[in-house]
Amino acid sequence: MNDTSAMLSTHPVAADDLDVNLLAEAIDACLACAQTCTSCADACLAEDDVAKLRDCIRTDLDCADICATTARVLSRRTGENTEVVKALLSACRTACGNCAEDCESHAEHHAHCKICADACRRCEKACGELLAALS
Amino acid sequence: MNDTSAMLSTHPVAADDLDVNLLAEAIDACLACAQTCTSCADACLAEDDVAKLRDCIRTDLDCADICATTARVLSRRTGENTEVVKALLSACRTACGNCAEDCESHAEHHAHCKICADACRRCEKACGELLAALS
Amino acid sequence: MNDTSAMLSTHPVAADDLDVNLLAEAIDACLACAQTCTSCADACLAEDDVAKLRDCIRTDLDCADICATTARVLSRRTGENTEVVKALLSACRTACGNCAEDCESHAEHHAHCKICADACRRCEKACGELLAALS
Amino acid sequence: MNDTSAMLSTHPVAADDLDVNLLAEAIDACLACAQTCTSCADACLAEDDVAKLRDCIRTDLDCADICATTARVLSRRTGENTEVVKALLSACRTACGNCAEDCESHAEHHAHCKICADACRRCEKACGELLAALS
Repeated sequence: MNDTSAMLSTHPVAADDLDVNLLAEAIDACLACAQTCTSCADACLAEDDVAKLRDCIRTDLDCADICATTARVLSRRTGENTEVVKALLSACRTACGNCAEDCESHAEHHAHCKICADACRRCEKACGELLAALS
Repeated sequence: MNDTSAMLSTHPVAADDLDVNLLAEAIDACLACAQTCTSCADACLAEDDVAKLRDCIRTDLDCADICATTARVLSRRTGENTEVVKALLSACRTACGNCAEDCESHAEHHAHCKICADACRRCEKACGELLAALS
Repeated sequence: MNDTSAMLSTHPVAADDLDVNLLAEAIDACLACAQTCTSCADACLAEDDVAKLRDCIRTDLDCADICATTARVLSRRTGENTEVVKALLSACRTACGNCAEDCESHAEHHAHCKICADACRRCEKACGELLAALS
Repeated sequence: MNDTSAMLSTHPVAADDLDVNLLAEAIDACLACAQTCTSCADACLAEDDVAKLRDCIRTDLDCADICATTARVLSRRTGENTEVVKALLSACRTACGNCAEDCESHAEHHAHCKICADACRRCEKACGELLAALS
């Protein structure tokens, strides 16, 4: 059990009956992806070929924002907001998939895009698994 | 043309062909809703009957996070990320609708819930109109 | 009294004795500055001379993040967290001043930088005035 | 070298000459603290004695917002924004210290407050160490 699982387990009356490890994996994947996308946008911006990386920076920034918000919403277990959680997880999965695709196209030339594509794919998968568990 | 429209209009090569006023209305509605939901959660927390307002605080916090992120993503017009924009707008509309419903049930007793419900309904509508324009 | 003032006024037992209009002005200036900086970073990214605008994009992104968080923290009036509010306001004022300075140096060539510099200066001023009222 | 260090190391021309491991430690401590504070606020909200935990929830929410923004700003290494980084680190250290103090006072009764106090103290320390390295 990692730190996030431990923290989630302390909730006195969680409304959901989710596996906390599955939930913690999605939260941690979102946080890691948000950090990586923020770093990747910044590293792309400093590259000589920044003009070719415009789309990548934009998808990075969108993905970072959406992953950060998804991590927050998933961290809440008071009351019930399942419809919103599912819609947001779906948007997050799409954002990660799009960002991964863009970063993969630059992965050969830029190490940050390679690392970022991997973090996006992990987050896309974690969001998909949590969505499946919620359905 | 308000400040947000003026700013959006300065983009040199916006990929979308959206009406900037419609886009600015959605962004401004998201920003206003995020502020109102943050204030409403905080005011609920200070009420004597806070124990009855737990669900309202949770939906407020989720709605604030999602609206703030939606405002950011909508503000970007470089490159193209339409699939993500649509999924996020849809999640935001759902979050606003859920939060409005909860706040409406307390609107008679708490002025902050009444104001917040109105801001959520305005944002729900603005997201819906932008979604329609994107389809 | 604008919307933000109206909302702030509904708090049942605000710990601070601040003028809500002054507080609302700072919150609204932070929200406007966050939106403008997000748009300016995105518009800079799409400019032909993006390679010359790297520093501007970075200060825009930092300023947007700090202003958004400052707006949230200022919106809370339950309990008391004055030392944190003051430190954050000070950081926000510095971020706005730095971003304004960078944008001003491009204001002649890029309309978004001109609008953004003005929004930063307004927010810098509003943060300073609120800081003075808190001291 | 962890994931964050690896990512930071890919920046093509980082302006700072910081030890990436020290920087990565501060970023990771901020992300962990932001998650823990978000969870702690939510768990406090669900406790029977929520009315006694109002101040704790407020400091948790402020700390979560400030840590999340600090993690983002620290992740950027393009250009130079040192004055802002230092002011924000200082605000973050104060926010973590205040939140830790509040959570420590409830740590005996609530496991989430105990875990959260520890995460806040770690982040307070990491911010202080990075501040020292920047001076």
